[in-house]
Amino acid sequence: MARQLFELTGTDPARRFSPYCWRSRMALAHKGLDAEIIPWRFTENDRLAAHGGKSVPILVDGAATLTDSWDIALHLDQTYPDAPALFQGPPETYRFLSAWTDAVLTAGVARLVVSDIVGLLGPAEAAYFIESREKRFGMKLAEVTADREARLPEFRAALAPLRRTLSLQPFLGGATPDYADYIAFGSFMWARVVSPFALLAPDDAIFTWRDRLLDLHGGLARAVPALEAWPLNAAG
Amino acid sequence: MARQLFELTGTDPARRFSPYCWRSRMALAHKGLDAEIIPWRFTENDRLAAHGGKSVPILVDGAATLTDSWDIALHLDQTYPDAPALFQGPPETYRFLSAWTDAVLTAGVARLVVSDIVGLLGPAEAAYFIESREKRFGMKLAEVTADREARLPEFRAALAPLRRTLSLQPFLGGATPDYADYIAFGSFMWARVVSPFALLAPDDAIFTWRDRLLDLHGGLARAVPALEAWPLNAAG
Repeated sequence: MARQLFELTGTDPARRFSPYCWRSRMALAHKGLDAEIIPWRFTENDRLAAHGGKSVPILVDGAATLTDSWDIALHLDQTYPDAPALFQGPPETYRFLSAWTDAVLTAGVARLVVSDIVGLLGPAEAAYFIESREKRFGMKLAEVTADREARLPEFRAALAPLRRTLSLQPFLGGATPDYADYIAFGSFMWARVVSPFALLAPDDAIFTWRDRLLDLHGGLARAVPALEAWPLNAAG
Repeated sequence: MARQLFELTGTDPARRFSPYCWRSRMALAHKGLDAEIIPWRFTENDRLAAHGGKSVPILVDGAATLTDSWDIALHLDQTYPDAPALFQGPPETYRFLSAWTDAVLTAGVARLVVSDIVGLLGPAEAAYFIESREKRFGMKLAEVTADREARLPEFRAALAPLRRTLSLQPFLGGATPDYADYIAFGSFMWARVVSPFALLAPDDAIFTWRDRLLDLHGGLARAVPALEAWPLNAAG
């Protein structure tokens, strides 16, 4: 296949869990494009360097190689203009949603689920992940998420702008989804794949929007099972 | 003049201070359209009811009357399609920025400047404003803003998505401003007109963006003097 998407996985290649990889995977589906999954694990930097990248996702599309999810989305709209647009207006008008997702949504999700990610990883990746993330947070990963039940109301309150928007229209893109939806959805998909912790209440407009995203494109995202209970690697 | 914009003022009709009125005033200028200023004060509900509205801004444009800033922007793009677009893509893709501005930016500004607004108002409006806002906040207005110096770092931190976006591009709309800029700018303009409290540090990307907005359209917004010191009505 001419098109390949490098996606973050752990021991199970079906459980792709990077929020940024999910942006690109949903973007490809939006454009009606297939791409071979190339599983990539945290310690395999050499395999990315060969493509000029430092992190996933990386898309190899014929002669073109894109090493960043934003650039992948731009590339897809430019290269496949007849397929439905990811950006319905200038991409610059999507920058704020992207910045909010990084600063508030993804950062908030990380503080609720980061310790669970270890359960998806093999020994070498787990060692790398624990060391690098404990350095980032300045504490043990178990300490980061220890009081997550108590912090959940604050996290949900911070999602007010998303909730308000989705109470007015079914998708961030309006009547139909666009790249804004995939940006935000990636972070929820990340949480769903790595953790059994329930981020959203079922009566939340964001919950029902997430359900719509899970069903999109033939149920592409829902096909990755939610993590129902821990420990995943109990027998290991 | 066929076109009239009802805008919130206090004792000085030049000091229009509603964040939502500033959205519409900047939107009109963006389209190259004039509109007579109709000053409106807090206690004059009857004058709005005559136009079918409950709050300002209200735009009367020939036979059309719009009673909400969002509807005004939609009307201007629909009615004057040859002038530069306020919405460069579907208006629905601007809803998130609008929701964030209401929930985070405007609400945050209010908690930093609300007590200063009283100084702009005549006795009847001041009495109405104090009673309604103290009910909303559940405390004296002076108490709302008493610790604003201490809360300023938290406010500035909450603007991270705006700061990140404006470190990548000069306007929320991209290379040129659009309605997203006017939505966010309105809240800063509100603070500038009613309070001497400095919301932003001069080395903040948001500060320089605000300066660009103040200079737009012939310096329309900068022409309303910033409030340098209190009390405004010291002689009154």
